[in-house]
Amino acid sequence: MSLAQGYAVHSNTAPLVPFSFERRAVGANDVRIEILYSGICHSDLHQARDDWGGALYPMVPGHEIIGKVVEVGAEVTKLKVGDFAGVGCLVDSCRHCGACDHDLEQYCENGPTFTYNSTERGSDQLTFGGYSDHIVVEQRFVVKVSEKLDLKAAAPLLCAGITTYSPLRHWKVGPGQKVGVIGLGGLGHMGVKFAKALGAHVVMITTTPEKGADAKRLGADEVLVSRDAEQMKAHANSFDFLLNTIPVSHDTNPYMGLLKRDATMCLVGVLTELDPPLAGVSVIFGRKHLTGSAIGGLAETQEMMDFCAEHGIVSDVEMVDIQNVNEAWERMAKNDVRYRFVIDMASIKA
Amino acid sequence: MSLAQGYAVHSNTAPLVPFSFERRAVGANDVRIEILYSGICHSDLHQARDDWGGALYPMVPGHEIIGKVVEVGAEVTKLKVGDFAGVGCLVDSCRHCGACDHDLEQYCENGPTFTYNSTERGSDQLTFGGYSDHIVVEQRFVVKVSEKLDLKAAAPLLCAGITTYSPLRHWKVGPGQKVGVIGLGGLGHMGVKFAKALGAHVVMITTTPEKGADAKRLGADEVLVSRDAEQMKAHANSFDFLLNTIPVSHDTNPYMGLLKRDATMCLVGVLTELDPPLAGVSVIFGRKHLTGSAIGGLAETQEMMDFCAEHGIVSDVEMVDIQNVNEAWERMAKNDVRYRFVIDMASIKA
Repeated sequence: MSLAQGYAVHSNTAPLVPFSFERRAVGANDVRIEILYSGICHSDLHQARDDWGGALYPMVPGHEIIGKVVEVGAEVTKLKVGDFAGVGCLVDSCRHCGACDHDLEQYCENGPTFTYNSTERGSDQLTFGGYSDHIVVEQRFVVKVSEKLDLKAAAPLLCAGITTYSPLRHWKVGPGQKVGVIGLGGLGHMGVKFAKALGAHVVMITTTPEKGADAKRLGADEVLVSRDAEQMKAHANSFDFLLNTIPVSHDTNPYMGLLKRDATMCLVGVLTELDPPLAGVSVIFGRKHLTGSAIGGLAETQEMMDFCAEHGIVSDVEMVDIQNVNEAWERMAKNDVRYRFVIDMASIKA
Repeated sequence: MSLAQGYAVHSNTAPLVPFSFERRAVGANDVRIEILYSGICHSDLHQARDDWGGALYPMVPGHEIIGKVVEVGAEVTKLKVGDFAGVGCLVDSCRHCGACDHDLEQYCENGPTFTYNSTERGSDQLTFGGYSDHIVVEQRFVVKVSEKLDLKAAAPLLCAGITTYSPLRHWKVGPGQKVGVIGLGGLGHMGVKFAKALGAHVVMITTTPEKGADAKRLGADEVLVSRDAEQMKAHANSFDFLLNTIPVSHDTNPYMGLLKRDATMCLVGVLTELDPPLAGVSVIFGRKHLTGSAIGGLAETQEMMDFCAEHGIVSDVEMVDIQNVNEAWERMAKNDVRYRFVIDMASIKA
């Protein structure tokens, strides 16, 4: 066991405060990682506030972790001391169901173990996330991170990155396709970068015209302002794929109208009810698909990290010291970040 | 031109009453059909009552038409006088868009011409449907009907049949798959028959336990009562495909929970808003698809008619004289028919 220093919330109304806790000893297949950078995901705030129910306190958030391997167990072959490593939303799964057998640990039929706000498999021990100085994780759930990447800006790849990369790959986005990314935030800005790198014609779809210039800087070929009825009409029935990153309840019907026949819109941001509701007519006429996707499996997360190293893709980040994390959450709640806060974990020693 | 005798509604509150009108002269590519049987579809009532908006009066409903060819134009090659013929929901389309080019006239990008409650292409002339003694239709929009079929029971194949056959084929339902048909009515009872004939393991999913025995008679291997939480739990994450025939707004979330990872639920009954709304979580965890499908193209409608002749599939029908059609509508509205009313059009001469 090792004593870890982090920040936790102790109730759904409490701020993040310093918190000390034990990490498990490094087992034969475990890797101990000194955390260098920890991204701040909007779902950290949702879970701390118990917006989705089932919150477990004390809660140490953080599932966009980049660090350096400082200790490995006897059976570890994937990484060695000194390697840069990443940990995302998952730290374990059953490893023997149909989903795990297909490297889709995020859909583990027995329920994956999340990096925080979860319990270790077969125990009541809470899992604690990346707002802390180190973490111990089984090697299957650790990815290697290339030194070619800007490490601090690579942290959000572990959640915002894989959450957008996985559906773009699964639905085979590529050259010759017109792809829309709906919502320009932590997820959306990665969606634009990936869709562009995969060769698609990328349209940023936003309610905020002011974000247009930024969207083009990120790689968007066009900007579509969704509140402009004329623009929406001009793009009707023209998209091969839509990646919907909006994190709150919204009307999906206008977006379904943008899809070609037989095309798909994939939700990655909103877990709650879609209100106003979807109308049957929005999918029936044109045999359109509404679907969703959750993060990605570990093999695909590694593939994404390698893709990012090859294409020079990282997130646009604003660095923050851990002592200022509550202010960062407040700004994130107001959508006041372009596009991801990352905690410089060196600050925890200050 | 020829004088037709039928039944029409003249407003969204009026009953069906006798109505005489002109059919166009038989053009070079047209077929004139003496109507023998006309199915009563729930959408006849929706449109007569203007539930979907845009109703055009006077309205002669009916888009499940079986009849005998009595006259053909000079260019007609598909049918000859004396053949049995079927007409469904469509009587024309633009014939040159991407959808029409792929034999998907129902998704015509310029809007198909419906059999009734529509206007002829390039004119203000209303189209009038099958609650009448004859109809004139361009040959592309007429299918051949085998004499092997029970003709009166074949009428509903033109809408209820193709509406369920098309998605089962499009999503490749077949042996080794567990397929659920949700809702046992005009559409649902055809869905069960087709899914069974295609080789799937068929589960009838209904709110009405009393329909269980009937579902098994129709070919269902199992019955799942959707109001029984224990049964729903036992079938969670187990279906390869769900055909949802419920014609009214309902909660789709419990049904999404029945699907396997990456599997699809297809709506064919409900055009209006799905309330309570779908939750993002219902599609995100398991990458599940909610989609829909509208009737079918003409080539596929012919394929279905031939499939039915080969497998001896028709609808379960209750015959009604045209003079009693208002009572049939009332009973249909109360779901009091197993499973389709068909008008014996000989009665119009009474």
